Amino acid sequence: MGVNSNRAEDFSSQDTTLRITTESVMPGMEIHKVCLPPKKTTLQKLKQRLGEIFFPDDPLHRFKNRTWCKKLLLGLQFLFPIFQWGPEYNLKLLRSDIISGLTIASLAIPQGISYAKLANLPPILGLYSSFVPPLIYSILGSSRHLGVGPVSIASLVMGSMLSETVSPHDEPILYLKLAFTATFFAGLFQASLGFLRLGFVIDFLSKATLVGFMAGAAVIVSLQQLKGLLGIVHFTTKMQFIPVISSVFKHRDEWSWQTIVVGFSFLVFLLTSRHISMKRPKLFWVSAAAPLTSVILSTLLVFCLKLKSHKISVIGYLPKGLNPPSANMLSFSGPDLALAIKTGIVTGILSLTEGIAVGRTFAALKNYQVDGNKEMMAIGLMNMAGSCSSCYVTTGSFSRSAVNYNAGAQTAVSNIIMSTAVLVTLLFLMPLFYYTPNVILGAIIITAVIGLIDYQAAYRLWKVDKLDFLACACSFFGVLFISVPLGLGIAVVVSVFKILLHVTRPNTLIMGNIRGTNTYQCLGRYKEASRVPSFLILAIESPIYFANSTYLQERILRWIREEEDWIKANNEGTLKCVILDMTAVTAIDTSGIDLVRELRKMLEKRSFQLVLANPVGSVMEKLHQSKTLDSFGLNGIYLTVGEAVADISALWKSQP
Amino acid sequence: MGVNSNRAEDFSSQDTTLRITTESVMPGMEIHKVCLPPKKTTLQKLKQRLGEIFFPDDPLHRFKNRTWCKKLLLGLQFLFPIFQWGPEYNLKLLRSDIISGLTIASLAIPQGISYAKLANLPPILGLYSSFVPPLIYSILGSSRHLGVGPVSIASLVMGSMLSETVSPHDEPILYLKLAFTATFFAGLFQASLGFLRLGFVIDFLSKATLVGFMAGAAVIVSLQQLKGLLGIVHFTTKMQFIPVISSVFKHRDEWSWQTIVVGFSFLVFLLTSRHISMKRPKLFWVSAAAPLTSVILSTLLVFCLKLKSHKISVIGYLPKGLNPPSANMLSFSGPDLALAIKTGIVTGILSLTEGIAVGRTFAALKNYQVDGNKEMMAIGLMNMAGSCSSCYVTTGSFSRSAVNYNAGAQTAVSNIIMSTAVLVTLLFLMPLFYYTPNVILGAIIITAVIGLIDYQAAYRLWKVDKLDFLACACSFFGVLFISVPLGLGIAVVVSVFKILLHVTRPNTLIMGNIRGTNTYQCLGRYKEASRVPSFLILAIESPIYFANSTYLQERILRWIREEEDWIKANNEGTLKCVILDMTAVTAIDTSGIDLVRELRKMLEKRSFQLVLANPVGSVMEKLHQSKTLDSFGLNGIYLTVGEAVADISALWKSQP
Repeated sequence: MGVNSNRAEDFSSQDTTLRITTESVMPGMEIHKVCLPPKKTTLQKLKQRLGEIFFPDDPLHRFKNRTWCKKLLLGLQFLFPIFQWGPEYNLKLLRSDIISGLTIASLAIPQGISYAKLANLPPILGLYSSFVPPLIYSILGSSRHLGVGPVSIASLVMGSMLSETVSPHDEPILYLKLAFTATFFAGLFQASLGFLRLGFVIDFLSKATLVGFMAGAAVIVSLQQLKGLLGIVHFTTKMQFIPVISSVFKHRDEWSWQTIVVGFSFLVFLLTSRHISMKRPKLFWVSAAAPLTSVILSTLLVFCLKLKSHKISVIGYLPKGLNPPSANMLSFSGPDLALAIKTGIVTGILSLTEGIAVGRTFAALKNYQVDGNKEMMAIGLMNMAGSCSSCYVTTGSFSRSAVNYNAGAQTAVSNIIMSTAVLVTLLFLMPLFYYTPNVILGAIIITAVIGLIDYQAAYRLWKVDKLDFLACACSFFGVLFISVPLGLGIAVVVSVFKILLHVTRPNTLIMGNIRGTNTYQCLGRYKEASRVPSFLILAIESPIYFANSTYLQERILRWIREEEDWIKANNEGTLKCVILDMTAVTAIDTSGIDLVRELRKMLEKRSFQLVLANPVGSVMEKLHQSKTLDSFGLNGIYLTVGEAVADISALWKSQP
Repeated sequence: MGVNSNRAEDFSSQDTTLRITTESVMPGMEIHKVCLPPKKTTLQKLKQRLGEIFFPDDPLHRFKNRTWCKKLLLGLQFLFPIFQWGPEYNLKLLRSDIISGLTIASLAIPQGISYAKLANLPPILGLYSSFVPPLIYSILGSSRHLGVGPVSIASLVMGSMLSETVSPHDEPILYLKLAFTATFFAGLFQASLGFLRLGFVIDFLSKATLVGFMAGAAVIVSLQQLKGLLGIVHFTTKMQFIPVISSVFKHRDEWSWQTIVVGFSFLVFLLTSRHISMKRPKLFWVSAAAPLTSVILSTLLVFCLKLKSHKISVIGYLPKGLNPPSANMLSFSGPDLALAIKTGIVTGILSLTEGIAVGRTFAALKNYQVDGNKEMMAIGLMNMAGSCSSCYVTTGSFSRSAVNYNAGAQTAVSNIIMSTAVLVTLLFLMPLFYYTPNVILGAIIITAVIGLIDYQAAYRLWKVDKLDFLACACSFFGVLFISVPLGLGIAVVVSVFKILLHVTRPNTLIMGNIRGTNTYQCLGRYKEASRVPSFLILAIESPIYFANSTYLQERILRWIREEEDWIKANNEGTLKCVILDMTAVTAIDTSGIDLVRELRKMLEKRSFQLVLANPVGSVMEKLHQSKTLDSFGLNGIYLTVGEAVADISALWKSQP
């Protein structure tokens, strides 16, 4: 082991001289030394790592090399995007924004009332929630097309989680208090995620999970609406598929044909208008105007025919006036605090996911960037402010944003216009809703959520990635049969499990040389690749961690056993050298280092040479720190598989 | 996009013709087509994947191409390893086994009594547990050096978990029932893990975690022994650091100097003997014989001086006779069932980890293989049988196995010899333990666990891998200050978090060409590497998943922005092409595919070309299935970065 004695210093010195073999297989092939990455202290590494974790987008790069004055302006624009587009705002933009603002208002008013009912809250809260939050978002938010307001998923989840513990009918005040408190915590959670730059937390709700979750939630929401559509009075408060369905059929005596006729007629009308807008995006206003039209028509119908006495339930009295303050209703003590926090976090994370995804979608269409962490702070602050002004959880809604975008919205001013329209409604038009039948709200909700069932996306998942489909199916059935938060939890666990499975059982491939090149590729995949006699070349396709070091040891030994069997069967000389291609081993931990050591010892006992090819920087560094590098010696680590094969073959020839 | 029209069929056909460019940068360089992996049905893929997950060692390979008779014999040997070495057993081996068996018996008897006290169980159970389980293991187990019996960690954990709910002094029968039931579940859990080939579950207790856990447990166990060593009567039943320490000082009036003198003298004797054996492995028998010597000496001392009246508590009456059956004490109902199951699983997993690790360690020294899943079944069955014969959780003990190995054990017969010695003790020698002072058991336990504090290993972790050290520290402090199962849980979460962090924030590197080769390497690490004008070559060092697709998009766009700034600052022409080296992207999911699509579109809008180099088989397959491949066209995917650069440069030259 004479060559190894000054190996450590050999590797730590950063000189880059080349070793050139005299007799190699590829004549004149240069052999390059494998370098350690540049030396860094623990503190420097930590700083760089934290930078990558929390500031991957380098948000301060705009501030570099600017004057103080410019920096201040940029800072203001950074915190309040309104300063970015405000100075350039003009009448033409305003015209577009007014049109789109009024269009989404016509959608927002009936949707707001409906979604509030979905959350078991007084309908007026839906309007309050369409007034304050959009105003705040228009100042803080960086998306130009996001239509802000209550959304179906968050409303459903809040309703189902709170009403499991507190009945909205028996204890309406407590329920309301809990709803505001949960909204406050949702906002706090969202703003904290943004402020602490932990936005990546929502990435763990993968698209696959969301497809399943949304579809499950949509089915539940739609089934819940059967209460209104069939006119059932005594309906289950549970959310799962089975109790809801059984409740529908148990109370067949309560079905009211008047309600059913009105409800299903308008449902057909709404679905048709939705279909038209989907077929022809230019006719987006058809589906945008349909809900308000339905509300007006059905209210007139009930008013004229006095159907109220004929068993069609109506919304009834709604108080006129602006949002009353509700800060005094937030309670940060008592037995239900845990429930409020839990509900806040679940609704917060769901509404955040929707808001960010919608914002990113429309930003990509118009080729601008939305800063996830900043958006989180905007949405969070808007919800915290909302919780003090009688609003419940709001976020960027997909349906509203799509209408906003199609109606030509240019800036966040369209949200201000919408707020103004809601303000007018709140101040003057509330009595008009007295005769609006509840059944129409059910029809509006069903039309809104039916688009969340994206079976084509599920089919694509099945075709491309079976494990993604599994996560999707788990969240769908979990939400449908167990409960909303648990279903979501299961789906996240399945998604994380997928990552862990890949690490626990990584691929190992046997590689061969592609004729006439220095490239080595998988033998099974490339027919041009052929075995190199006396060598077994394995590629490990994963970091080496505690979770897979035992497996990898067993698997590598099995490869060697099988290779020996193959050689015996084909009379192909003897196996002398095992090369591990470490290109894809992007990290290693202490268990992984132990594996490498152990393997080297085991193979040495059987007189095989173990060679590592192309270890990445961090792996090389850890091999060096743990002194494992020393035991490999000069002919143990190579830059490429090609150089390893060439150099070792040459060595064998020179020392037969 | 004319070239792309028949792209799908182009890729799905498996022919391997080469495209050779006429004018490439490297003259005469061949351009190879990137192949799809061989086609497989979903069922075939599932079968292969399940094979890799559950049968990575291909356990049936021995049975291939054998006669039925031979297969039967191999099967018997597979199930009962005793048939493997039994036929070749001879007198010489027996002599070695008798010596080692008697040596471990002299260690096992005092240890058994001590560990039973640690688990708050009657001392006699420790002897029962050293009789039946070793016999069963010697038939089923595949390790030749494992010394089987109760161990400190599992005893401590069982004692601490059960006594939190049930007091061993007030309800001894219920406590005993729970202990047997927990042992049964531990065995069932262990055997199931082995039978279902889920052995990899224990891999999630990484070595780093175990170093911290063992040290924390050792500290707690040692502190607990202060009760015996100081002669305190009223001691806390809690296990955490703070209550134990405060209890020690609160009851200063109960300290008995006689106990302290006897206890600490023998502790010094035991620690010295341990030190001698550690310095000179040949003197292993010094530490092996020391506990029994201490027991004999201290018993004689107490007996002669009648110190019992002088406040030294003794073991007292122990019943003579063999293990009584205890199957009737297993209870599978009642309010404490959940506790029994939980305790069973935690002690089961801990004792399994110790047993497997010890078995592997000594197998590696003698160059034979231990099959993890088979060992789990052996240990599990031995515990299930134990729970029906008055034994509590047992496994392969490190100290006992080390003595066994050093004493020259050759086969599992040494376990049979030890059992026989314990049998003789149980039948005839029990009255001799009447005067054995409890304080000596405390000293034996401290000596046994002190070796679990491996501060050197912790220092190595710190040096090589800071995150591993963090997991280690978490489990140490968690066990010390919170509780044993929770501390362990936190450590596992930290370990898993480490894996997820690596996936969530993967490395991306900018690569350059190593002069005179086709190799591309990290620019920052290799000084020989230099930029290729007009190209930005990025290596992504992780699979692309939902958890990192947003990050990667931001990070890649930032690389492009920084590259453009650099080009502008250095007047280096324009950036035209971004090459992603996908070698280390060992998997992709639907979110990852969306990223690739999205990125291609974004770069196209900015008139950059996006090229993928060397996608692995599964990634290629998914790109194909999702039709993403089609949009890349002929000049979008290359086998190596070198070929991509050569071909695209040639293309630019020919179409200026």
